[in-house]
Amino acid sequence: MEGHEDIIEQQVEEPVEGKETRSHAASSSSFPGSVSPSEGEEPSSTQSSHRLLAYSDALISIIATVMILPVAHTKVEDDEELRQSVQLLLTTKIAVYLMTFLIVTVAWAAHIRLFQVIVRIDDCLALLNLACMMVITFLPYTFSLMATFPEKILGILLFCACVMVTGVLQSVIVLYAFSRPFLLNEQIQISENRTFYKHHILKVIMRVPLMCLFASIFSVIFFQLSYVLLAIVIFLPYISRGLKWCRSKAIGPADESPDSLMFYTFLPDEPLTKERVEAFSDGVYAIVATLLILDICEDNVPDPAVVRDQFGGSLVAALQAYGPEYLAYFGSFATVGLLWFVHHSLFLHVTKTTRFMGLLNTFSLAFVGGLPLAYQLTQEFSPNSRNELEAIQISCVIIFFAGIFQLTIWVAALYNERETLHPYVRYGGREHAFMLAKLSLYPCVALGTFFLTCILSKFSASIFHLMEITVPFAFLVLRLLVRVGLALIRQIFSPDRPDLRIVVEEDVDEARVPFNTVVA
Amino acid sequence: MEGHEDIIEQQVEEPVEGKETRSHAASSSSFPGSVSPSEGEEPSSTQSSHRLLAYSDALISIIATVMILPVAHTKVEDDEELRQSVQLLLTTKIAVYLMTFLIVTVAWAAHIRLFQVIVRIDDCLALLNLACMMVITFLPYTFSLMATFPEKILGILLFCACVMVTGVLQSVIVLYAFSRPFLLNEQIQISENRTFYKHHILKVIMRVPLMCLFASIFSVIFFQLSYVLLAIVIFLPYISRGLKWCRSKAIGPADESPDSLMFYTFLPDEPLTKERVEAFSDGVYAIVATLLILDICEDNVPDPAVVRDQFGGSLVAALQAYGPEYLAYFGSFATVGLLWFVHHSLFLHVTKTTRFMGLLNTFSLAFVGGLPLAYQLTQEFSPNSRNELEAIQISCVIIFFAGIFQLTIWVAALYNERETLHPYVRYGGREHAFMLAKLSLYPCVALGTFFLTCILSKFSASIFHLMEITVPFAFLVLRLLVRVGLALIRQIFSPDRPDLRIVVEEDVDEARVPFNTVVA
Repeated sequence: MEGHEDIIEQQVEEPVEGKETRSHAASSSSFPGSVSPSEGEEPSSTQSSHRLLAYSDALISIIATVMILPVAHTKVEDDEELRQSVQLLLTTKIAVYLMTFLIVTVAWAAHIRLFQVIVRIDDCLALLNLACMMVITFLPYTFSLMATFPEKILGILLFCACVMVTGVLQSVIVLYAFSRPFLLNEQIQISENRTFYKHHILKVIMRVPLMCLFASIFSVIFFQLSYVLLAIVIFLPYISRGLKWCRSKAIGPADESPDSLMFYTFLPDEPLTKERVEAFSDGVYAIVATLLILDICEDNVPDPAVVRDQFGGSLVAALQAYGPEYLAYFGSFATVGLLWFVHHSLFLHVTKTTRFMGLLNTFSLAFVGGLPLAYQLTQEFSPNSRNELEAIQISCVIIFFAGIFQLTIWVAALYNERETLHPYVRYGGREHAFMLAKLSLYPCVALGTFFLTCILSKFSASIFHLMEITVPFAFLVLRLLVRVGLALIRQIFSPDRPDLRIVVEEDVDEARVPFNTVVA
Repeated sequence: MEGHEDIIEQQVEEPVEGKETRSHAASSSSFPGSVSPSEGEEPSSTQSSHRLLAYSDALISIIATVMILPVAHTKVEDDEELRQSVQLLLTTKIAVYLMTFLIVTVAWAAHIRLFQVIVRIDDCLALLNLACMMVITFLPYTFSLMATFPEKILGILLFCACVMVTGVLQSVIVLYAFSRPFLLNEQIQISENRTFYKHHILKVIMRVPLMCLFASIFSVIFFQLSYVLLAIVIFLPYISRGLKWCRSKAIGPADESPDSLMFYTFLPDEPLTKERVEAFSDGVYAIVATLLILDICEDNVPDPAVVRDQFGGSLVAALQAYGPEYLAYFGSFATVGLLWFVHHSLFLHVTKTTRFMGLLNTFSLAFVGGLPLAYQLTQEFSPNSRNELEAIQISCVIIFFAGIFQLTIWVAALYNERETLHPYVRYGGREHAFMLAKLSLYPCVALGTFFLTCILSKFSASIFHLMEITVPFAFLVLRLLVRVGLALIRQIFSPDRPDLRIVVEEDVDEARVPFNTVVA
């Protein structure tokens, strides 16, 4: 942490020296991201972009998870007749939530891509970025308008307007940054075909607003077509990549200009700034963890008059009615917290984040967003009812998917482990088995609980609560468990090697190839 | 940013080398925060604490601003009879909000202090910290229970229980960290009287839970006393500092043991990790900026049935009813965003944050938290009513205080500018005048708007909207304005010095003493 402060200080300090060393601007600094303005024009106004990006990440992560609130506040009645329509309503709302999450993360990915090219900011860029954020935060609302009134063109027009304004603002940011090259990434700064980059980036950025312009024009004539166009907008990068991949398989790889490979490629292994993926995930986990306490704080302080009249002045009795909500809060906070813990452990050992890993992370986060609601549902129904069983099983399914997508991030990273992972967690690394255990603990437990509740449906609630209580302790003793497990496996498969019988502290270095070589 | 990634890589990479250089553990590393475990025991499990702290900051900042929601959702009727009771209710709720904000920031300051001593974490510490966070996030709820039912002891007991559990968890964290010294701050790690530090820190941490224990015991006997005790808990550090200061003024400075000066001193210039102050502020600004869009997303998508029946199927007509809310959203987002921008500009040039600056920052943030509500109120009343005027004036007052406390952070920093500020913004620094202009723009504008609305109360709404629209542009051209202003001042006060007539790019170095020397 203090090291980090050092960097920021260094970044602020640098311009002072920058004045002296102005001539050799692109001099090799020990920190690629530090501020070393290459041209004398207004160097004092350039700033590190770190905090601006952290703030943007915080805003976008809040906005991404906002649309879970209408889902949360749908009243679910314990009544068979109403259930059908409520289920339909819930399904629609959940679909809207997932689509909004996807759209916002697409906007976020575009923002990352932009600020991988622009690594320094000045006041003007900061204000432009704030304007951009303001429009992006309005996106979920326009989308939910569009989803609620699919046949009205106003929703489409508003949504398209938001996207177009965002696109125009991003283009202005690009134009501004290219007019002040010291704000740019060093690679582009020293590159000779800077203009080529500018046109390439502008072309990519303007593609989306142009499609939206067409969509809004078509919406006046034939509004179904504009939905098709909007769907294409979202999946455009994937579609174009897929087509290119198919073509390369069919007629051999096409020659791509090597210059354009670095930025705005939409390749699955295009780098995403790891720090921003972490910041965005932290934001989502933090909002989701506190989602239920927001509700509790807002609604669950009983009215003094009600306590006096209905509960005979007994606050304890009044609060007992809210008991299940507290349980739901602690359960969901613990689960979200532990999923964050697993995410944190994984990303400690990730050295480079790719686009594909980012996509898997988004899926995992989308499921995490639904978790508090599932927990809330769990506590809402009468014990041993069919609804309660369903709610518990939904919780298990959500935990399972949130966990399994985290696991796939690691698996995806293992495919290119030299670039993306720290040696410790690669195949044969010292922490490989431990990381596997950490990442698979929640999916396994969720799957186990799911099947147990299917078989022993009467005890579903007790099984679920038992799971909630044991998992944190399982994480505490996981390292020990993995060690014992490895020792056992070694015992069974190679009992003749005496030096491996117990993994003692001293042979940590020898144990660098513990799991895979023994099992394989 | 990439530099930052570098650090994290370095931190993860380090243990590999750490194994070879185990003997000289406290070897001077270029990054004080990097992981260099001093003892061989489980070095692979130690991690940089950076992300854990960022997540904690996010959680605490959300929780600190939560209690504004009950204030937000109090229905204010445009009716004279009801207004008195509603105003009383609102005043109570606002007092609860401010107190909660203060209490949560006290908990947050304790958390910072703790993790200034413990600079590395392992899995066990991460889990303990999550448990601690879970209890802290429950604190606002227990406090609002206590405030709603001041005469019931349950609220006091719950609140005290939360504080005590937090204290015990923090003590466990301290004990655990001191049993694994490689997790500690390097200064303590190499210090000989590590045990003295441990006892000192434990003593400070346990003071608060002990007071709460007494408070909860007294609450059974004589509950008024327990409130006095709780008030003492919050203001304890300030009281003890004040007493010490008085004594030192009266009978000369006491000898303090130099060892205990570094951590847990409660001196106003005790350092607070700057990065965490920024992260916490970012969290609060982000939540507050999106507070109104949360409301809009949740409630303002009209029901299709309502649109069909009441508005004749016209979505535009239905949305027009919500018009003022959108205006309020954009207004509050822009104001909060610009206040964030000022905060960001200031902290770019702050090199060390002290406890006192942290306190001023907290006050500024507490006012920022109320801003969206003030904006919402502004749009809620009928035009030209007395309520509207009051709401607009309240908004101005809130903006004024939020801005003026930001200004005082800078003023406080200037008192010890060598330690806390970058040379650019110190007295006579190149950016001194510009920083002053940035920091005083909002207070001045708010004050001006306030008095204008007093005089021209009929046009209050138009004046307010005009202010909202012009301020962002004022920030854009502020550098130019300051330059012109400085040139004018120079013209007036020393027209005989020809080389200072226009501040051109070349004489930036000469212009290092522009403002104060000329004015003074």
